[in-house]
Amino acid sequence: MVEEKAAVIILFGGSGDLARRKLYPAMFGLFQRGFLKDRFAVIGTARRPWSDDYYRDIVTNAVKDQPGATVEAAEAFAAHFYYQSHDVTDAAHYITLKELAAKLDDQYHVGGNRLYYMAMAPNFFATIAEHLKSESLLTAEGFNRLVIEKPFGHDYQSAKALNESITATFDEKQIYRIDHYLGKEMAQAILALRFANPLIGAAWNKDHIQNMQITLAEAVGVEERAGYYEGSGAMRDMVQNHVMQLLAYLTMARPQSLTPEAVHAVKGDVFDHLQPYTQEEALANFVRAQYAPAVVDNLTVSGYRDEAGVAKDSLTETFVAGKITVDTPEFAGVPIYVRTGKRLTRKSTQISIVFKPVAHDLFGAQAKSNVLTIYVEPGEGFSLTLNGKALGQSNDLTSEELRFRHDERATKAAPEAYERLIQDALEGNQTNFTRWTELAQTWQFVDAIIAAWHTTTAMPTYPAGTMGPKAASELLARDGNHWVWQPTHVQLAD
Amino acid sequence: MVEEKAAVIILFGGSGDLARRKLYPAMFGLFQRGFLKDRFAVIGTARRPWSDDYYRDIVTNAVKDQPGATVEAAEAFAAHFYYQSHDVTDAAHYITLKELAAKLDDQYHVGGNRLYYMAMAPNFFATIAEHLKSESLLTAEGFNRLVIEKPFGHDYQSAKALNESITATFDEKQIYRIDHYLGKEMAQAILALRFANPLIGAAWNKDHIQNMQITLAEAVGVEERAGYYEGSGAMRDMVQNHVMQLLAYLTMARPQSLTPEAVHAVKGDVFDHLQPYTQEEALANFVRAQYAPAVVDNLTVSGYRDEAGVAKDSLTETFVAGKITVDTPEFAGVPIYVRTGKRLTRKSTQISIVFKPVAHDLFGAQAKSNVLTIYVEPGEGFSLTLNGKALGQSNDLTSEELRFRHDERATKAAPEAYERLIQDALEGNQTNFTRWTELAQTWQFVDAIIAAWHTTTAMPTYPAGTMGPKAASELLARDGNHWVWQPTHVQLAD
Repeated sequence: MVEEKAAVIILFGGSGDLARRKLYPAMFGLFQRGFLKDRFAVIGTARRPWSDDYYRDIVTNAVKDQPGATVEAAEAFAAHFYYQSHDVTDAAHYITLKELAAKLDDQYHVGGNRLYYMAMAPNFFATIAEHLKSESLLTAEGFNRLVIEKPFGHDYQSAKALNESITATFDEKQIYRIDHYLGKEMAQAILALRFANPLIGAAWNKDHIQNMQITLAEAVGVEERAGYYEGSGAMRDMVQNHVMQLLAYLTMARPQSLTPEAVHAVKGDVFDHLQPYTQEEALANFVRAQYAPAVVDNLTVSGYRDEAGVAKDSLTETFVAGKITVDTPEFAGVPIYVRTGKRLTRKSTQISIVFKPVAHDLFGAQAKSNVLTIYVEPGEGFSLTLNGKALGQSNDLTSEELRFRHDERATKAAPEAYERLIQDALEGNQTNFTRWTELAQTWQFVDAIIAAWHTTTAMPTYPAGTMGPKAASELLARDGNHWVWQPTHVQLAD
Repeated sequence: MVEEKAAVIILFGGSGDLARRKLYPAMFGLFQRGFLKDRFAVIGTARRPWSDDYYRDIVTNAVKDQPGATVEAAEAFAAHFYYQSHDVTDAAHYITLKELAAKLDDQYHVGGNRLYYMAMAPNFFATIAEHLKSESLLTAEGFNRLVIEKPFGHDYQSAKALNESITATFDEKQIYRIDHYLGKEMAQAILALRFANPLIGAAWNKDHIQNMQITLAEAVGVEERAGYYEGSGAMRDMVQNHVMQLLAYLTMARPQSLTPEAVHAVKGDVFDHLQPYTQEEALANFVRAQYAPAVVDNLTVSGYRDEAGVAKDSLTETFVAGKITVDTPEFAGVPIYVRTGKRLTRKSTQISIVFKPVAHDLFGAQAKSNVLTIYVEPGEGFSLTLNGKALGQSNDLTSEELRFRHDERATKAAPEAYERLIQDALEGNQTNFTRWTELAQTWQFVDAIIAAWHTTTAMPTYPAGTMGPKAASELLARDGNHWVWQPTHVQLAD
């Protein structure tokens, strides 16, 4: 049974790329499933002076090619959209916005529910939050919730300042900080894998796990985002948020329940036990690098420093590999290797749990580590590599991979990350959003590493189309380990 | 590196069905792989008066259609075969046989190695063994090994008498008692699965396993074997040997090494801990049944009592299901459910390990038991059923099956069970053969159950083409369990 959600959604950044590529399709998905139906309106705001009709055309075009869409449905959906040209620093504009929201609330029988969605340049987030308070946009009836996109700050200090601004208007229970990786099927599936399967759960600890590996690989380069990326880099763009959130799901204790409070309690415990690095340790345990020019698939690909908008002496990393440890009783001493980068061999997010090898020599030295891989995307699913008996007369072992992949059509038909997160926000479920304390702790962790990097101008490179610099392999080799990089079988037939 | 084995193989039962269907193709496989090459000869014996040429035609025809065979290779192989018409009760015939063996030994430079292979009606096994001794067929140089087919006795007493006969001629180290299930790839693979995979091994005990299940299902009826089967039944034909051997591999401790001594030591320990049943317990824990007529795949199929050669009031079981426990520290109290029968839904031998479900209710009551299935044949491989997160917005669980299947072509190309067992015997490796103590203990176990059945003429039936009588399901339902019966995916594409 689908119950319609009533809300006026005020979208800051209504003309932006994220809105067009992700948010309108996500909302349309909710519309198709009936979660958004009659009692909702969206006010898109941005600086440009658009008419409602023009805006609705934008929205219609953004959703009409979605699976199962018809032009009629897209237009019916877009009819709920209103445009407000808006200067976020101008107090008067918030009054106009408030009046429009109140009118639409009446018109659509919304009952005062408001979702304020910040999807624009992050430097305006604080200003908007302050004006929402000063111009009294929050309603007395219904809910008032802030959905806020990353990046949430540039480092701990700026994140703290931003958080102070928004918490002057919203309390923690009203704030939905987006990390869209938490909306991905296979990120959510980690909890079921660990806590609904005693066979797996029994071995999910330092007694059985040799190391864990998180890889977020992109095949693309910086593309047209150099302006943003030059000031960010892989550590801020990917590690502080997505990688750390996956790491928490991999190492947190079993929550008492699946309520937001219970899940955040055990996640928080992980971040409380992140082992901080001294400057020397940071340099020893984290590797940064930039992609260098190379021929990839018969095409010549630029190096990072040759990309438009990138400084010739840029020290922004396009690749990070590091070793993280979480000092909980269950995982103390287990290396968690993480890596992410642009211009790697192919796009794939995968997590591998490498178990300790057998402690006896019944089969000589042939037994390899058991490896459980979670294919976050693409090829959503799991594989488990076991030692099997090689066919034939000997007792030789061979690696055998047990595989499960979701049906590709079913994965495509399932709600995309943003769709489920917006639904969560409309339903008041904060489980898949990040708390301030998590951000504070992960920023402090990565700040220390970035600060260590700032003591040197050394910047290793890796040829575009490879899996990073040699130093990234050496990081694991030092511990007697190596990176697992599974092929991405996109579809398995039965 | 393949090293040629030199031997004169004396085959009692050279005209028989087993020889034609299994032994000649197996020896031919060894010939193709070079294990049998120049220095071997086979003397086939049977009552019929055949010429060598006639016999070689039989052998050629038995092997010429094997994978990779040519008529030339088949004929070159068959040229090593000699026929000796033989009355096993006539001492003079053994002298002739001895002289022929000595001559071929010279001719093929064998060096005195002898394999005596008993592949005929079991009532002659003792007579043959006695004559081999009395007529001094065993050589002073080289090895003398007895390979003996099942059935090894009809019950404990007859098995004991047979064993005493053969041990008067051969000592235990020279005796290779065949249980061809031990030659199957996936039976041998159980050891690698359990002892080379810490993730699996750590959970392989009573703390984690809810129950184990062994199913040996045949689709065929008694066919032309009623004469033998009426005096045997499923318990003697399948449970006492194959099922019990698989059970031992599933529950034995890790051997110190893979030597025959080490493996038999831990297997022996399992049989020492078989929990015997009183008459009452036997009737409560074992179910027998006969197949009843039914329409299967649009064909009318006879019931067992209507088959040619079967008594109208036959009390021979064509189906057995039972619960066995092994009272070792690791497995005490774990029910091991076994079943085997004819005219079941399809031919499949599979083993399922059902793990205990989660002890908490994080996902409500949705989590099912993890199940690890070993597909012994067909579809050789493994599957592991886990609880995964169902696609979509909820936290619902769904069963997800991780699968590995050997490539069907690779399985077909690998040595068949008999090929590896004959090679083992030629190499003097007793690992995959059964010891007398194992037979003694398993016969005593099944004798008690058969004796309990003899106290009643009740004989449940099951329609041909089904998985047995209701009582077989009730046996598990009583413990809150149910049979796992996995589909046999024969081939998975990548």
